[in-house]
Amino acid sequence: MKKIGFVDTTFARYDLAKEAIRKIEQEISFKKIKKTVPGVKDLPVACKTLIEEHNPDIVMAFGMPGPEEIDKRCADQASHGIIKAQLMTNTHIIEVFVHEREVQDEGELKELAKKRAKDHAQNVVKLLMKPKELKKEAGKGKREGHENAGPL
Amino acid sequence: MKKIGFVDTTFARYDLAKEAIRKIEQEISFKKIKKTVPGVKDLPVACKTLIEEHNPDIVMAFGMPGPEEIDKRCADQASHGIIKAQLMTNTHIIEVFVHEREVQDEGELKELAKKRAKDHAQNVVKLLMKPKELKKEAGKGKREGHENAGPL
Amino acid sequence: MKKIGFVDTTFARYDLAKEAIRKIEQEISFKKIKKTVPGVKDLPVACKTLIEEHNPDIVMAFGMPGPEEIDKRCADQASHGIIKAQLMTNTHIIEVFVHEREVQDEGELKELAKKRAKDHAQNVVKLLMKPKELKKEAGKGKREGHENAGPL
Amino acid sequence: MKKIGFVDTTFARYDLAKEAIRKIEQEISFKKIKKTVPGVKDLPVACKTLIEEHNPDIVMAFGMPGPEEIDKRCADQASHGIIKAQLMTNTHIIEVFVHEREVQDEGELKELAKKRAKDHAQNVVKLLMKPKELKKEAGKGKREGHENAGPL
Amino acid sequence: MKKIGFVDTTFARYDLAKEAIRKIEQEISFKKIKKTVPGVKDLPVACKTLIEEHNPDIVMAFGMPGPEEIDKRCADQASHGIIKAQLMTNTHIIEVFVHEREVQDEGELKELAKKRAKDHAQNVVKLLMKPKELKKEAGKGKREGHENAGPL
Repeated sequence: MKKIGFVDTTFARYDLAKEAIRKIEQEISFKKIKKTVPGVKDLPVACKTLIEEHNPDIVMAFGMPGPEEIDKRCADQASHGIIKAQLMTNTHIIEVFVHEREVQDEGELKELAKKRAKDHAQNVVKLLMKPKELKKEAGKGKREGHENAGPL
Repeated sequence: MKKIGFVDTTFARYDLAKEAIRKIEQEISFKKIKKTVPGVKDLPVACKTLIEEHNPDIVMAFGMPGPEEIDKRCADQASHGIIKAQLMTNTHIIEVFVHEREVQDEGELKELAKKRAKDHAQNVVKLLMKPKELKKEAGKGKREGHENAGPL
Repeated sequence: MKKIGFVDTTFARYDLAKEAIRKIEQEISFKKIKKTVPGVKDLPVACKTLIEEHNPDIVMAFGMPGPEEIDKRCADQASHGIIKAQLMTNTHIIEVFVHEREVQDEGELKELAKKRAKDHAQNVVKLLMKPKELKKEAGKGKREGHENAGPL
Repeated sequence: MKKIGFVDTTFARYDLAKEAIRKIEQEISFKKIKKTVPGVKDLPVACKTLIEEHNPDIVMAFGMPGPEEIDKRCADQASHGIIKAQLMTNTHIIEVFVHEREVQDEGELKELAKKRAKDHAQNVVKLLMKPKELKKEAGKGKREGHENAGPL
Repeated sequence: MKKIGFVDTTFARYDLAKEAIRKIEQEISFKKIKKTVPGVKDLPVACKTLIEEHNPDIVMAFGMPGPEEIDKRCADQASHGIIKAQLMTNTHIIEVFVHEREVQDEGELKELAKKRAKDHAQNVVKLLMKPKELKKEAGKGKREGHENAGPL
């Protein structure tokens, strides 16, 4: 059975991991390992240690950076760290970040969060179980959270 | 007994570490290792060597970047380094940075510094002793130093 | 026979890899390894694991970052990761990124995508089979996707 | 006897290392290793090889980035590299950078350079010989080159 | 006899390496290893593999980033990679980048390119053969490509 790691934050304003886990459960059986850290900057090492201790097939890292300039910098630092953690462990860590500035109000933000978590969860299932399906979608302008842009 | 590392700077304008240590002492018994360096750029290697020499369960790194553009760059470089140090040691380093530009005057800055140090100290206790509590707060819009944003 | 890796994304709006593969097939016989991931941030680890599992002579990584500020940041993070992956594996990963902001409309974007993929494919053939030809073109102001700037 | 490394550049417009060395000599006896490179981007590897060849207790890296946008980027790249070099060697490299944009004219720049070099030299002495003194100054708003900001 | 590596690009609009090689030949006898890659982002891994395969005493990496925002980002990514490659190999890689935006027209750009290549070549000779001369020039405000700024 596949093993999937989930690392999320208390800073986020929506339970992204729960949404993603529910989506994956609809599709496959899997062993779940879950960790919560305070903020996005704590994600890289949390993902890395989760990977080295539990050896999951893939990890999802969830975060909701705030609207300020400093929040953008933090998210950027976190993303660099998440990429480094992947390269050090040879394991995919699917970054699911929802930025407050992407939408106009809290209602839209909630919808975006929900849809993005589910769309990335769908990607995780494909990466693990259906790589051929992903290949068919190469260059198709898929989007996570927003409507697909579609192919040119 | 848990062992916690604290690294702070002479550049900071408030004794963030003291505040954090006091907060943690109210909650748990722990062995404390403390180091002071000049500025935030000195934090990454100081944390890494502290970790390798003393093997703490977790480290807190404190800094107060100044208000200028160059200060923001320095803080950014330091943050990248702190994330790298975590990935190289598989140890959480909770970054407690207070930026002069976050608030309007020195009075507010002092209050922010105090509250942020304490809130992060609380997170450290949870990471070490009560990971389940953190899990319950996933996606709850917690903030350190400012009022909680709350869940959507 | 040379072995070439291709990693592309479902986020891209054009099948860049197909274009590149077709171009290379016109010139040389080669063994192809292909992987598709969701977005550009998933490219670094996908390239690295492809390299370590399949030992290709070279890899091409394709992406089409969107037009927003956040897309630029993601592309930047991905590029840093791709450079790191190269340094960790001692293998060239030719980054073929087409940015939505480079041109005015979707028609131009499609033409740019097509031409850039082919031009980089041509570079891959030269790197693998004709390093002397590349040397002759040093400092000649070659461009991929756009018209050559030419030498000063 | 303590061993201290000094790496500076021909790009800088003031002999920062000389100033720092003189200051340290007033306080302690030490063995000095000195290297000069062209610019700040050459500092990271120069510091790292100096450390691995000579095993100093600490290193000082001096630079004076120019006033243009490109100079800021170079300084940023150098700083990231210096932090990486520290993490790879577990050795403090005290970065002493003086930015042309910090002050209005060349007279002020010279004074800033002089004072910053001396203040960082003082920090080096404390890091090596008087760590307890540094601890007492934690959170005291110390500045290098400029007047101290002081505690809140 | 000293061994020097040269890596340049087909993207550049001037044969920087040729200019540098000619300059060095006027001063010393050396063994030359030369490689050409498409663009600046290909330089880091090309330099690293050249170093590991040929073990040169020093490497020069040449590039001419274009005038657009995206070109600046690419140059920045390349520079970070070149610094990393140096730290991984303990070998100096002298970065010779000429930015289109530095000057007003193509005539000036050509002169800048020529002079910068020669000035950096001169630095390479000093780093290899005359480290004492470099030490004498510490803090003297030397510039590569432009007129020296001179000491304060």
